Amino acid sequence: MTAPRTWTAALAVIGDEILSGRTQDKNVAQVALWLNQHGIRLAEVRIVPDDIGRIAETVNELRAAHDYLFTTGGIGPTHDDITVDAMAAAFGVPVIVHPEARKILEDYYRGRPGGLTEARLRMARTPQGAELISNPSSGAPGVRMGNVFILAGVPYIAASMLEALTGKLEGGLPIVSVTVGARAPESDVADLLRETEEANPGVAIGSYPFFKDGRYGANFVIRSEDGQLAKRTGDELSTKLREAGYDPVEGGL
Amino acid sequence: MTAPRTWTAALAVIGDEILSGRTQDKNVAQVALWLNQHGIRLAEVRIVPDDIGRIAETVNELRAAHDYLFTTGGIGPTHDDITVDAMAAAFGVPVIVHPEARKILEDYYRGRPGGLTEARLRMARTPQGAELISNPSSGAPGVRMGNVFILAGVPYIAASMLEALTGKLEGGLPIVSVTVGARAPESDVADLLRETEEANPGVAIGSYPFFKDGRYGANFVIRSEDGQLAKRTGDELSTKLREAGYDPVEGGL
Repeated sequence: MTAPRTWTAALAVIGDEILSGRTQDKNVAQVALWLNQHGIRLAEVRIVPDDIGRIAETVNELRAAHDYLFTTGGIGPTHDDITVDAMAAAFGVPVIVHPEARKILEDYYRGRPGGLTEARLRMARTPQGAELISNPSSGAPGVRMGNVFILAGVPYIAASMLEALTGKLEGGLPIVSVTVGARAPESDVADLLRETEEANPGVAIGSYPFFKDGRYGANFVIRSEDGQLAKRTGDELSTKLREAGYDPVEGGL
Repeated sequence: MTAPRTWTAALAVIGDEILSGRTQDKNVAQVALWLNQHGIRLAEVRIVPDDIGRIAETVNELRAAHDYLFTTGGIGPTHDDITVDAMAAAFGVPVIVHPEARKILEDYYRGRPGGLTEARLRMARTPQGAELISNPSSGAPGVRMGNVFILAGVPYIAASMLEALTGKLEGGLPIVSVTVGARAPESDVADLLRETEEANPGVAIGSYPFFKDGRYGANFVIRSEDGQLAKRTGDELSTKLREAGYDPVEGGL
């Protein structure tokens, strides 16, 4: 059997509010989980400031290095929303008012207080040649430009754009993960973990320690593109942990 | 007056668990806030997988581009903890067992169940030429290598290493931020925000919308290295919002 191709994506999180520590990012985890459902691995994330040059440079590096690039943030109606301008600069095309996006916004704001103001119309701007990503939450669409997917920064809006893209991207095999937890200091089972990983080519085992209810413990996450192999390795690890005197908990702690 | 020099740092978050979406990162925000107290701006974050080559490449790019580089993750006792090896590769030096780190671990594990096992001794490994960063939480120290600061991934341990570094890094002026909130759809005040920013060179105004209790609103964050200017601009924005019929809330909503 030839190994299936691995599909990868990068995510660029755009926003001074994340880099200043004011806002806790929530998009990395939700984009990662959504990608994995599609058999696409999130291989790299960069968080960059609201700076057109820096965003454009990051976009051009990442869209060349991966099958897909996602971005979150900077597509609202205010002056600090510059992602579309940066994207146009990255692709070397002008910014236009996208006719279909204008129509979506006209319909969305018809009857809403204030109507389609000039500020709101900013959200119809796209790089020339873009397609739209539907936004069931709040009207203003996301933007697709080649292999780049431009999503909103507000997590529930980003989630609804991902929902709209579900099933539309080509990918490979999702990574299956099996978690086994134990009330063991990870350093006491380090050898056992390494041996189990080495005995099962095609799996990676991660060890994530915690301190809870006054006791040390760790979750061991077995990841593989081969679901049966992940399951078998999990069983093997549980058996070894039991033999070593720990009480393994399948599904994790 | 000459503009004071701007000090910048980058953060490399190391870990498959963040990229898989399994674990929500908490270190970006705490490192960002800590840096700002020292007058150092977090200018870029990269989240990279547990891969020695990728980590080493990222480290070499970022340590050259910024005054400081921080990393979180991958310094525990298990086989998937490879940050020290990657750092040694980046600097082109061997990995050694650091005598002072070994002493710290000997003291820490004396009398603790299991003692200083070989797995735990892994946490005394550093690139040759490194200094240690004290870890009041759990013994095993962080590592400083030139302008690179290698911290633990577990957030409370990373926090205690930052605490140990407090006051020890040279920086410039912290960014002061003033927040004004209003129950206004941000698109209705977009012009007002842009005008206020343009009228006050040296400030940046970010607009962060929310939907809470069934109503739209936004927080406007005014950032500047000049605290008085930030304060004056906040007052000016509040006045304009009041004149436009909104009820501004200083400190934000």
